Amino acid sequence: MTERGTADPALPGSTAGVDQSAIRRANLALVLDEVRRGEVVSRADIAARSGLTKATVSSLAAELIARGLVRETGLRRDGAVGRPGRSLELDGKRVTALGLEINSQYLAALGTDLAGRVVVERRVGFDATRAEPATTLDRLAALAEEALSELAAAAASSPAGIAVAVPGLVDADSGHVHYAPNLEWRSTSITEALRDRLGVDVPIAVDNEANLSALAELHSAPEPAADLIYLTGEVGVGAGIVTGGRLLRGAGGFTGEIGHVPVDLGGTECGCGRRGCLETKIGLPAVLRAAAPDLAEKDADPQDQARALRERAEAGGPQAMAGFDEVGKWLGIGVSMLVNLLNPEVVVLGGYLGTVAPYLVPAAMRELRDRSVAGDAAACRITASTFGFSAAVRGASSTVIEEVFQNPLRVPAVERAAG
Amino acid sequence: MTERGTADPALPGSTAGVDQSAIRRANLALVLDEVRRGEVVSRADIAARSGLTKATVSSLAAELIARGLVRETGLRRDGAVGRPGRSLELDGKRVTALGLEINSQYLAALGTDLAGRVVVERRVGFDATRAEPATTLDRLAALAEEALSELAAAAASSPAGIAVAVPGLVDADSGHVHYAPNLEWRSTSITEALRDRLGVDVPIAVDNEANLSALAELHSAPEPAADLIYLTGEVGVGAGIVTGGRLLRGAGGFTGEIGHVPVDLGGTECGCGRRGCLETKIGLPAVLRAAAPDLAEKDADPQDQARALRERAEAGGPQAMAGFDEVGKWLGIGVSMLVNLLNPEVVVLGGYLGTVAPYLVPAAMRELRDRSVAGDAAACRITASTFGFSAAVRGASSTVIEEVFQNPLRVPAVERAAG
Repeated sequence: MTERGTADPALPGSTAGVDQSAIRRANLALVLDEVRRGEVVSRADIAARSGLTKATVSSLAAELIARGLVRETGLRRDGAVGRPGRSLELDGKRVTALGLEINSQYLAALGTDLAGRVVVERRVGFDATRAEPATTLDRLAALAEEALSELAAAAASSPAGIAVAVPGLVDADSGHVHYAPNLEWRSTSITEALRDRLGVDVPIAVDNEANLSALAELHSAPEPAADLIYLTGEVGVGAGIVTGGRLLRGAGGFTGEIGHVPVDLGGTECGCGRRGCLETKIGLPAVLRAAAPDLAEKDADPQDQARALRERAEAGGPQAMAGFDEVGKWLGIGVSMLVNLLNPEVVVLGGYLGTVAPYLVPAAMRELRDRSVAGDAAACRITASTFGFSAAVRGASSTVIEEVFQNPLRVPAVERAAG
Repeated sequence: MTERGTADPALPGSTAGVDQSAIRRANLALVLDEVRRGEVVSRADIAARSGLTKATVSSLAAELIARGLVRETGLRRDGAVGRPGRSLELDGKRVTALGLEINSQYLAALGTDLAGRVVVERRVGFDATRAEPATTLDRLAALAEEALSELAAAAASSPAGIAVAVPGLVDADSGHVHYAPNLEWRSTSITEALRDRLGVDVPIAVDNEANLSALAELHSAPEPAADLIYLTGEVGVGAGIVTGGRLLRGAGGFTGEIGHVPVDLGGTECGCGRRGCLETKIGLPAVLRAAAPDLAEKDADPQDQARALRERAEAGGPQAMAGFDEVGKWLGIGVSMLVNLLNPEVVVLGGYLGTVAPYLVPAAMRELRDRSVAGDAAACRITASTFGFSAAVRGASSTVIEEVFQNPLRVPAVERAAG
């Protein structure tokens, strides 16, 4: 259960021999990936780069076209218009994916096509902490139906899948939420509940929001690092860990719980009942107390609070500056743990941490440099996510798309209009 | 640089198509692995389990026999004696591997055959902290030559490779030691230095001792977990992290530096100059101070000190008991970080921590249960390594053997005597 998705019984290293159908699947994925990277490429280009024969590439391309994943275009890479049908590009029209998010203060949906282009994005304020799980799931299903209608208008068929981001401990194999402290959910099954409400016959996956946000960085950032940690900060603090280009899931799927690692054993009591957890130092309530106490009591959307905090930082008042410096120092202590243990290339800040990153990172980097055992050899950047509060839904959608790229045979062949 | 070893340009996911030679290599590895698992198996058994045809299995087996990796035997799995040549078993005689270790207080060597059977094991006391690196490498080379002679007497050819364990930050790709604090080494290249001294033409790899010890657990323990953390405790404290059956290396190869994660910011000054590092709480000097202060000043072999500590624990004096309880508590705090971040199935204690594990684990488990965010869902055992102070050399040797299992073509075909 280290990686979600269908186990492949026919690839090297498993107990079955490599057979011809596994090779064809791998080569379909290879050609589809070449089209994605090249944007517009000829069959000859793909043959030259992959080492496959032109005849094999043509056969594979025909199958990808039949499945609506690739289409022919007259445009060649140099921009000249050649004979129609010579070059290939991704067919964004047919295959789509939907990402959903349950946050303690809002619900969100984001749908993309095969190329990762955002087709629909919606977000509604909703206080999930004051609603029953069933009510929250009703409201999420309503949002999803609106998004699915827009996706259906843009694409010729239903989405390849739906993935749901939840702020808690999730068994990604079963779609079961073990414990989501900030939603006050225990042992809640999302996959079945959502399938019943939506009445669609597509795979529905569920995962932790920090995990999915980390995958957004891996799949959708302009120059993704293969070793990155996404550190999200809202009311709770959590991490999504990518090492060697893979999400780190651990034995039971419960990784990245850095929010309750103790950094100050005699410190403030945490919501979890322990003392001095990292969350008590860098969670949103902590930074509000330190930098803008007059904003601290409001039970607001974390995105609005983050914006208000940023305005306070931009205004440069002494309390705000001292508060950010203190929170930045604790952020650096937290990041130094991640760097000493996991040696990432970059730590990406999400949630409010991303919004106010410019005011936290200098102090954090000072602390990190002082505490990194490998010193400059383990040089690690701290950056803000480019996806803002949309990282989780973006990552959710991208996991569905990546599964199609891994195995193009998941998408059924379609009847095409003649001609 | 996430995994050491030759990149394979022909497997799925890379930029080259899957070709027939890559398939043959993967299938050779598959048949070799079936022989290893089955101990003695027929070609028909392998064909049935792998999905390959009997003709293909016979051809692959002939190649493995030609390379001296597999041999024919008359013995069948049920113990009955059939026609000679019907069944296959590993040929332990031809392929061997040598593991070496540089510890601050000793040097060690361990050689195994292809089946992981220990052919030679040597260990000499040596204070590397008082010697120049060149002197230490001279002494290590002398030890290696003795071990190589014994391996040569047992096997028909030179070893498939040598791997060296070092207590420090190592670039495993180049064999360069970046920093080894307890040896007081900075920027030392081991691969070339050892190759010059030994004059053998085999690959020489270098890696961190906690990494290699973790790989010993993964490759050689009776029932290895795919998600395990090896926590070594001698003068220094470090971790080797295995997730999803792979060693976690991070962006630069510098993972597992848990010894200098702060657990008590106002605490004792550490050798690294910071305060309250985990090493100041659970390193060997700390436990000696807490449980047996009269042993603390001796500059002895850590294995001897661990044995003396264990005798003290067995005698059950009140100071020893209170000391172990205190160190066990801090061990639990350290392990809880690993569990909350990485969700391993088991934390394996090495070095002195393994020797005195029964006296530390109860207090550590109490602390872990209290601090694990996922609670019983992330249930994690804490056990002692079965390899004692030999874990690093055992792991070093096993990495060489595993590379042969991954790619049997690394071992050249040999001229066989006729008949």
